[in-house]
Parts: sequence; C-alpha cells; structure tokens
Amino acid sequence: MMRTRPLKVALLGCGVVGSEVARIMTTHADDLAARIGAPVELAGVAVRRPSKVREGIDPALITTDATALVKRGDIDVVVEVIGGIEPARGLITTAFEHGASVVSANKALLAQDGAALHAAAEANDKDLYYEAAVAGAIPLIRPLRESLAGDKVNRVLGIVNGTTNFILDKMDSTGAGYQEALDEATALGYAEADPTADVEGFDAAAKAAILAGIAFHTRVRLDDVYREGMTEVTAADFASAKEMGCTIKLLAICERAEDGQSVTARVHPAMIPLTHPLASVRGAYNAVFVESDASGQLMFYGPGAGGAPTASAVLGDLVAVCRNRLSGATGPGESAYAALPVSPMGDVVTRYHISLDVADKPGVLAQVATVFAEHGVSIDTVRQQGKDGEASLVVVTHRASDAALVGTVEALRKLDTVRGVASIMRVEGE
Amino acid sequence: MMRTRPLKVALLGCGVVGSEVARIMTTHADDLAARIGAPVELAGVAVRRPSKVREGIDPALITTDATALVKRGDIDVVVEVIGGIEPARGLITTAFEHGASVVSANKALLAQDGAALHAAAEANDKDLYYEAAVAGAIPLIRPLRESLAGDKVNRVLGIVNGTTNFILDKMDSTGAGYQEALDEATALGYAEADPTADVEGFDAAAKAAILAGIAFHTRVRLDDVYREGMTEVTAADFASAKEMGCTIKLLAICERAEDGQSVTARVHPAMIPLTHPLASVRGAYNAVFVESDASGQLMFYGPGAGGAPTASAVLGDLVAVCRNRLSGATGPGESAYAALPVSPMGDVVTRYHISLDVADKPGVLAQVATVFAEHGVSIDTVRQQGKDGEASLVVVTHRASDAALVGTVEALRKLDTVRGVASIMRVEGE
Repeated sequence: MMRTRPLKVALLGCGVVGSEVARIMTTHADDLAARIGAPVELAGVAVRRPSKVREGIDPALITTDATALVKRGDIDVVVEVIGGIEPARGLITTAFEHGASVVSANKALLAQDGAALHAAAEANDKDLYYEAAVAGAIPLIRPLRESLAGDKVNRVLGIVNGTTNFILDKMDSTGAGYQEALDEATALGYAEADPTADVEGFDAAAKAAILAGIAFHTRVRLDDVYREGMTEVTAADFASAKEMGCTIKLLAICERAEDGQSVTARVHPAMIPLTHPLASVRGAYNAVFVESDASGQLMFYGPGAGGAPTASAVLGDLVAVCRNRLSGATGPGESAYAALPVSPMGDVVTRYHISLDVADKPGVLAQVATVFAEHGVSIDTVRQQGKDGEASLVVVTHRASDAALVGTVEALRKLDTVRGVASIMRVEGE
Repeated sequence: MMRTRPLKVALLGCGVVGSEVARIMTTHADDLAARIGAPVELAGVAVRRPSKVREGIDPALITTDATALVKRGDIDVVVEVIGGIEPARGLITTAFEHGASVVSANKALLAQDGAALHAAAEANDKDLYYEAAVAGAIPLIRPLRESLAGDKVNRVLGIVNGTTNFILDKMDSTGAGYQEALDEATALGYAEADPTADVEGFDAAAKAAILAGIAFHTRVRLDDVYREGMTEVTAADFASAKEMGCTIKLLAICERAEDGQSVTARVHPAMIPLTHPLASVRGAYNAVFVESDASGQLMFYGPGAGGAPTASAVLGDLVAVCRNRLSGATGPGESAYAALPVSPMGDVVTRYHISLDVADKPGVLAQVATVFAEHGVSIDTVRQQGKDGEASLVVVTHRASDAALVGTVEALRKLDTVRGVASIMRVEGE
C-alpha cells in the first residue's frame, strides 16, 4: 500500500508550535509514513528570523519568502502556525490556489474569516483542517463535525482558555486577588506580557465562534459572540460563590434556543456548582461539555495549549489531509446549511447572582422584590446581612432572559435604598 | 452539492439501539441529508420477530431474511446492531462482498475477529466503522485513529463498562456489599438478568482489545487481554481504599512498555486515588484517559451505553461512511503496522495493596518484609493492627512486575505466621 513519492509539507511559522511540528515530523517519520501510506517530507519552513538556530531543521529549508513557498506548486499540504489575520489569510488562500490543502491552528483568522477560507478550499477542491485552533490537543472539531454528525447538538459549554483558568483557579484555591494571580501566571509563563487577548475573553470568543459554527451548522462570526472578560472578578466574588457551593470559571457557551430556531454564543465569567465536572478543571487545563439529543452529555478534557499538545492536533490533521490527498478525496468542508439566526445576548436565558449594598431599614427587601417582579424575573433565594446601618442583600434569580436581568439591575441602581450593586454574575451549569 | 438518488441503508437488528437508529434516520432525515450531501433511506430492517409492532418503521421494510437483505446489491451501508459472533460475522462479510460498507456496534465480534473483518473490508474497498462498539456515544475510536494519528499513544486507562461502574459506585457511596449493589443495578435496568459479561469483565476486555489495537497500531485480540472480574470486591476493600485516599474502579488498561517494544492490555478492579479524574466518574457513566507523547493527558467522558447514545455513535459513523461513498474514497482501515508483541500479565509493572491476617507476635513483620525483599518487591508503606493475638498487616508496594508481586503473595501464603491473605488489589492511576 505504501507509495514512495513523499507528500510535501510547507510549514509557515516555526515558533513554539511550528518547531514541535517539525521535530515530530522528523522523529516520527516512519510512523507517520505507515499511518498515511506514503512518506511526508518537510519541503520548506517560512520564518521571520532566518538567522535563528533551529535544531533539527535543515537550514536549506528555511526561507523568509512564505509567498514563494506556498506558490511552488509541488506542495501537498501547507501547515499555517503563524497566527493573526495577515499574512496568514493571504497565504492560505494562495496555497489553495496553488494546489495545496491547509492545516491551520489560527483561531482568530477562522473566527473572523472561516466562511471565506472554507469557500476558497472548496473552490479548489482542497481540505481546510484546524483541530489545533480550539483547545489545543483536545479532539473537539473532529468529534463535533464527524462523531456527532448524526446527532443534534444543543449546547457546548466549556473552559477554552488555559491562562484565565489558571488565574481563576489560583484565586479560588489561595484567595488571591486578580492582579496577584495574574502576576503569578505571567511569572510561570501561563500569561503573555500583554494578557489582553486572554483575560478580556477575545481568545475564548474566537473559539466559541468556531465551536458554535460547527455545532449548529450555522455561520457564527467573532462579532456574533457576546464577550465579557474576567478582570473584574474579585476575591469577594469567590467568597460569594463558595457560599452558594459554586466556583467561578470563564466559560464559552454556545446554545440552541429552546424552540430550536436560533442560537447564541457568549463568553463571560460565571458561577458553576462545585458538583459540575467543569468546576474541577484545574490550572491551565481546558474542558468542554457537549450536550446533544441522542448522545446526552459528553466531556472532553486535556491540555488546551502549549507547543507539543498543539502540535499533536496539527499532526493529526496533517495525517488526515495526507490520506485524503492519496485517496483523491476531501474531508468534510464547511457545514452551514442550517443558517440559524444568531440572537443577541439579551435573548439568552440564564440565572443571575446579584449582591446589593442597601440601607438597613424595613421595607428594602419589599422594594427590591417589586423591581424583580416588575421585570418578570423570579427570585430563587434572597439572603440579607445587616451591620451598622448598612446591609447587603444577595439575590439569586430563577432563569430569565438576559435582557430582563439587565433591566432589573438598571432599575435596582435607581432605588434610593440601594447604595450600590456590589457584583453581578451569571450562574451556569445546572 | 446535493444529489437526489438516496443512499440505501440496511439495518440488521431492531432492538434498543436499532430502533433508535431507525427513529433518528426518520426524524432527522433532512439534517442527515444536508450533512451527507444526499438523502439516506432505510431500505430494509432485518429482525428475528417480525410480528412485533415497531413504531415509525414501515412494516414493508421488515424482513427475517438478513442474508437476502445484505445480498440485494443495491445497499450502500449495512448497520449491524445484532451483537454476538454469528450470524453477525457472516452477514458483515457478505455485505462487503455485495458492495456495501458496514457500521457495527459489535465489540465482541471486533475484539475476536477484527483483523479478518478489516481484511474483508479492504479486499472489497469498503469501510468498516465501529465507534459505537466502545463506550457508547463517547468519541474514542475516531480520536484515537484520526485525531491522535500524528502522536504516540502510551497509555489508555478507562472505565468502559457502565454496569460495573454503577455497582462499584453504589458500594463506595452506600457501603453496600457486591450482591446488594448488583441487585439494585438489576432492578434499575443497569445490569442484565445474567450479568456475567459485565461483572466478570468480558465486555470491558473486548473494549480493551479494540482500544489497544487502535492505540498501538498492533493487533490485540480478546485472548491477549488479561481479565479479572469485580465480583470479589468487598465492602472491606472499599474501607481499605478509603484509608489510602482511594476508591475502587474496574479499569481497562492498555499500556506500551517503557522500552516501547511491547504492549499489554488488561481489565481488573484497582484502587485509584480520589484525586484522579476517573475516581469521580459516577453511576453508569464511562470515561477514558489517553496519554500520549505530545498531547499529554486527554480524557473523554460520557454515557457508555443506552439506546440513544449508542445510536448517536452509529449515526456519526453512518454519515462518515456515506460521505466516503459519495467521494469514492474509504476512511482509515486497520492500522497494525507496528505489530508489537502483546506481553503477558506477569510483565505488567504495577503496585499492590495487600491485606494479610497474621499472628500477633514479634518478628512477623521482619519475616514478611524478607519475603518481599527476596522477590525484589520494594515496600512503600506497612500498617500493623493487633488485637487478641490476631493482627492484620496492610502492605502497599512500590512498582514491580506483576509476576514478582504474584510470587511474593504465593510465598507469603506459605509463611506459618501468615494466617491468610485477606485481599490483594492493584493500585493504578498515579
């Protein structure tokens, strides 16, 4: 079955992930050849800094001209691990036009321009695979687009950013504040010098867009994803969460509406019960829950980032794409036939945990309860604590639309007896 | 892209799983057609009892002649959910010879004759898919044979039988004995009237053979799998486990030897630390840990059995096989190129927890420790409890070959001062 002409791979980017891809392609060459049915050969490596010493890579393969590499015409598969929008987008499109299939780990690009890239792949009858774009080594894209292809996915709920999970886990376990936990994450290499993409939820939102698109067979772009970061989560929030038997996680949540006619995608910090399997996901690990009609609840767990785990996902895709080349077929392309509308955050149905600082006098609870009732939000529990003329009121609601909850909080702020809204957090995972 | 001639599916077996497959094929026909690129049509359903009323299935499709159905020549995909060796094996082979691809949920058959079935598929250039054979809806086969195709899997460690996990979980949480917990499992429908296949580990051993074969690219047959059931696990064992910060699970463990030159596969009850993610897998759920060179530790979790979850896995395979038919390609076949020897249980390296009833007199511990030393087994901890001339000694060993551990226990039994070996259990998951 083995053919001898090797499949040629062009590697775009040779940083943490790219260097691992090159290393494994060399050290595991025999295994890869056996699994593909033909040898694979690294035909070129495009980098920005050609002078850097790259152990195990033939210097003759290094080039700074990525465009010329993808235009060579003899490349079977382009592996794009540069990241960012340009030049990655242009290079991928050029690769398709010059006969190559593409394996990418580029979540930002796929979340922004996935539809156009898929169209370019299809127009050229080529593959676009990107398992590494979401949750590192954890198989998620393939299970969603293949294993669950005969099922109806209703919900994807996950921890898809390791940096923020590390920080939140640290805050939970040590009582540290956000800044202290972030400093530790930075010192240990879990957070970048500029942590914005992680802590403001941009990274998780890109992954949510990709997951929602595949899960619901609907185009979901980054702009469709509601996003709140986790920089304002406090030690006091964790204390409140503990009192409720919960912890706090930054969650990516993609849901089909109950009537099945629309979907939502969002990223925000949320309280989840300690009994929920996601509550025990520690450190920089990722985990994703998928709920479907027939399969019920599935969970996928593993390292969500890092050079070697991401390379594992890239190489799994590389093997699949190479097999497809040999058989003259392509794998599943974009599936967006359902074309469901993506509803705004206001339509999401969820629960709120609200801490209010209130005047410690009779009638306050009645006033507050009236505001909830006027907005059609049903209260699950209320806890009052009073001290020295000041009091706090902790309200946990039943499920209501996010719009109704936002309206309730706005009206509460206007009450004379409400001195301030100390914190608002959604409650998920029940 | 949609073609109008439907793909024809023959369903063999219409029990708990088959009826769900038929139901979803009907209710989700439009989604399946969109995802495949062509409609799929139920062309025939082979059953043993044709008189039984089957809601939602056209009676004209029902037949008792499964052989004639698979020989029709116009069938694209045969879905085999009969189970057992014959007639399933003959029907699958006949299906390949008559131009059909096959989706099967038959773990027993695949563990026994997987190589021959794969060869028949390959000889006829057809697909053989069987995600549903291991751990119900949990995607495991596809992640192992595709997502991790560029990685080197070193270990698969899992709870792959829901019945025994339900029983062990019940014993752990309520202190019940084995028989009491089994009775409850039977009453709730989690255990069959004859629970032998589950409680004696045959079902888990078949799954271990399949997983080991795929993970290590090596043929592993059911006979290669060491197997111990869980009928002799006692409430006292759970008490011992608790003292060690452990619980007890029936585990399927497939390992590559440290030198990489051989593999082992085994099923037995074992203590695992409460901090291990598998320890918190409750009820009839399944979960599988996969450890690989590059990806690190991944875990897959979900319902391991039941009509709808198993049907979800069958339908995911059905979509993949139909897509392959349309593109004129086949998916990955058997990958057994590594052909590593499967070592016997004696070569497995593990730890033991041993409870001994001993005479309460000086020098007993020295005698016992000497026996361990003579067999090259290093002791991690010893705990002694004495009362009324009787004493018990609980020894936990460091890692040693199973052969050395078995030899140690045999020698201990021969000591005059050892009245009996109360229990022996392996310790895993560290």
